[in-house]
Amino acid sequence: MSYLGVGVSPGIVPVYHNTKVFDKRIRITELVLRFLILGLGVLAVVLIVTDSQVKEIFSFQKKAKFTDMKALVFLVIANGVAAGYSLIQGLRCVVSMVRGSVLFSKPLAWAIFSGDQVMAYITVAAVAAAAQSAVIAKLGQPELQWMKICDMYGKFCNQVGEGIASAFVVSLSMVVLSCISAFTLFRLYGANKNKSTSW
Amino acid sequence: MSYLGVGVSPGIVPVYHNTKVFDKRIRITELVLRFLILGLGVLAVVLIVTDSQVKEIFSFQKKAKFTDMKALVFLVIANGVAAGYSLIQGLRCVVSMVRGSVLFSKPLAWAIFSGDQVMAYITVAAVAAAAQSAVIAKLGQPELQWMKICDMYGKFCNQVGEGIASAFVVSLSMVVLSCISAFTLFRLYGANKNKSTSW
Repeated sequence: MSYLGVGVSPGIVPVYHNTKVFDKRIRITELVLRFLILGLGVLAVVLIVTDSQVKEIFSFQKKAKFTDMKALVFLVIANGVAAGYSLIQGLRCVVSMVRGSVLFSKPLAWAIFSGDQVMAYITVAAVAAAAQSAVIAKLGQPELQWMKICDMYGKFCNQVGEGIASAFVVSLSMVVLSCISAFTLFRLYGANKNKSTSW
Repeated sequence: MSYLGVGVSPGIVPVYHNTKVFDKRIRITELVLRFLILGLGVLAVVLIVTDSQVKEIFSFQKKAKFTDMKALVFLVIANGVAAGYSLIQGLRCVVSMVRGSVLFSKPLAWAIFSGDQVMAYITVAAVAAAAQSAVIAKLGQPELQWMKICDMYGKFCNQVGEGIASAFVVSLSMVVLSCISAFTLFRLYGANKNKSTSW
């Protein structure tokens, strides 16, 4: 765990070459994840919002659409917000990389950390709720008389499944990003390794 | 944001009185949250597992129980695991407080951080999935012919609601704990504030 090359010796902060390399890798990882979330978030929204299927049952037509399932509405909103948030954060990353500016502002680091934490938990919760509805739609819940609907609306269910898969990768990426921003923030608080601390 | 009193001056780690006070508060907060999760996790499991209601429909009896809803099974497992995990972590906290030992072991800090992160996301996902099922049970999803069942099983639904509320507090506490363990881990990597770093 000493790949960072910092905090090895109490009270002394040695500067190693690999610290800069590590920092650069972290920055590039963050940038890639931000734009991955932007792309996959938009993809998830488009896949789910444009999804519909019409079935003729006896004499009348019945149309399946994403608004029939409230969990999908939540998923669309969560992924839309995540995509917009990642666009703003991605642009900030690009600007700071171009400028070569140093992020040692604690308020800014706290803002990024808080935003990433909130987005990570919201996207995970949205995927969990949508996956729960999808499982009921696919398998039914016979004890409660909730019928499976995917036998009837196969194409609709498949496209929803693709949207949820995309949203799942978005949520995983947000989880990794929230760890990165936690690292970026909390290392600013330094290693207080003097003997008087009994943590 | 300089309440910690560390990392204020590059290369120098000043020792302030309030650092020890802050560390002690963090430790006590962690201990309280660990045992809160243990208590509320067990409460959520007991509330949901012991919940059942029998209704007579025409000539036959129908019993509602938590295994009818897969999301509740997931919630019970997640809260059971969270309670067990918190018991172990809580005992570790007590031992380290009694011994007054110092947590500067990076592998241990990484293990606690990883465990807390996993438990936080699992408990949040479990609550989201259970809440989604509970909303369908309470309001129904008429577009999909999924009937509301809480009109029929009112007492069962109320007790499940209490269980989900308890699990919600568990998940919130796990989120706070995951932030605390991120802080404990990443501050070990110190504030590498020399000018050569272009973060």
